[in-house]
Amino acid sequence: MNTSKKISTCFVSALFEKYSNTESIVVVIDVLRATSVISIAFHYGVKEIIPVQSLEEAKNYKSKENFIVAAERNAMPVDGFDYGNSPFHYMNEKVQNKTLVLTTTNGTKALEIAKNHKTITASFVNFDAVVDYLILQNKDVILLCSGWKGFFNLEDSIFAGKLAEKLMNNAFQNSNDSTLAAIELFHSSEADLFSFLSNSSHRKRLKSLNMEEDTKFCLNPTFQSNIIPILKDGKLIKA
Amino acid sequence: MNTSKKISTCFVSALFEKYSNTESIVVVIDVLRATSVISIAFHYGVKEIIPVQSLEEAKNYKSKENFIVAAERNAMPVDGFDYGNSPFHYMNEKVQNKTLVLTTTNGTKALEIAKNHKTITASFVNFDAVVDYLILQNKDVILLCSGWKGFFNLEDSIFAGKLAEKLMNNAFQNSNDSTLAAIELFHSSEADLFSFLSNSSHRKRLKSLNMEEDTKFCLNPTFQSNIIPILKDGKLIKA
Repeated sequence: MNTSKKISTCFVSALFEKYSNTESIVVVIDVLRATSVISIAFHYGVKEIIPVQSLEEAKNYKSKENFIVAAERNAMPVDGFDYGNSPFHYMNEKVQNKTLVLTTTNGTKALEIAKNHKTITASFVNFDAVVDYLILQNKDVILLCSGWKGFFNLEDSIFAGKLAEKLMNNAFQNSNDSTLAAIELFHSSEADLFSFLSNSSHRKRLKSLNMEEDTKFCLNPTFQSNIIPILKDGKLIKA
Repeated sequence: MNTSKKISTCFVSALFEKYSNTESIVVVIDVLRATSVISIAFHYGVKEIIPVQSLEEAKNYKSKENFIVAAERNAMPVDGFDYGNSPFHYMNEKVQNKTLVLTTTNGTKALEIAKNHKTITASFVNFDAVVDYLILQNKDVILLCSGWKGFFNLEDSIFAGKLAEKLMNNAFQNSNDSTLAAIELFHSSEADLFSFLSNSSHRKRLKSLNMEEDTKFCLNPTFQSNIIPILKDGKLIKA
């Protein structure tokens, strides 16, 4: 095994340029909720996912057959779209073999920023599969936390810490302080992540919008998906 | 007491624009070592400090009477300058009543970025005085971690966490996840900060350069300075 594989953790997509290295694999993280939704949608049979940046772009797909169009802004579903950003929206057989077009506040931006890299998405829903996948690849890894509108967020950073620790137990080396901080935050929170996040900005935001069930599911999913969503030519497909 | 005073923590000066609010006080943090050096220099009698961005700009002051010119790049002193970025350089009576011109890798950049705000500098050397000062002001506070060349660093973030917790015990409110993370990192490290930082990038950098004594002093200074360095018209003076 090549022991020189490195992990770096980018806390905010606005800083990605500093970390960018097209020889690395980028792991896009937006656990509340875009990358959880992506995992769930694939798990329930979605064929592919097209992340788009604007509502206008998303609207172009609305009349197409076999497309589902989903939009979220500021944690809320957007009027006039089929779906929002709740994992529960996708747990039904109507999504099977459909193409999902998705635009969200942060996660789809992070995917756009990383598009010149080999890029996968990760969440607590496909955590185990992501670990196995990254160990099999012989590449450095950049953990790209989506954050919230350019700001650091706790849940993505904690997820990055959990993933980094697992990789470091499998011959990866850490290359920056943000990874050390993320691992420490993971340790501080692992006994009860939901409670730990009680003061976090996005848990409070989702709580105020009656989306606590989404939060609970995304942080403690009731199953693991073995699908790795990977970005190819602007679409997420199964790796 | 106005209970609406808010704290926000900016982990990297490159993100400062997102946090900027000229109604707030900015606290520039570069504990290893620029803001520690600034505290020490004032404590030992320096009259004022002119932070400059480039070596060329610093050189312009070299022949001036009653000026000390100090330069650091990549943790090293720069050839041809009177002083570097070690706090021990300033613990002598030659600095009394001098104007110190200082250019460093990160700290002086953070000062430049914040120059349109009311800006002070903080380190473990003047921690108590900074707390008292901020409590007396009736303003929101932005904790600006200098980081390392645009990357997150542990020591500045931990210091921000210590300061944020103290302020929150004095009627300040937190407004973002980065402050929560900083406080958590402070808690994880407070039993033995020097050991906690043993894997951090900058402690390793200073260790490799035989600057462990600088690190020890900056993290656990043997005295407290009651001086608040404040930026006025491009110069740091005593508040």
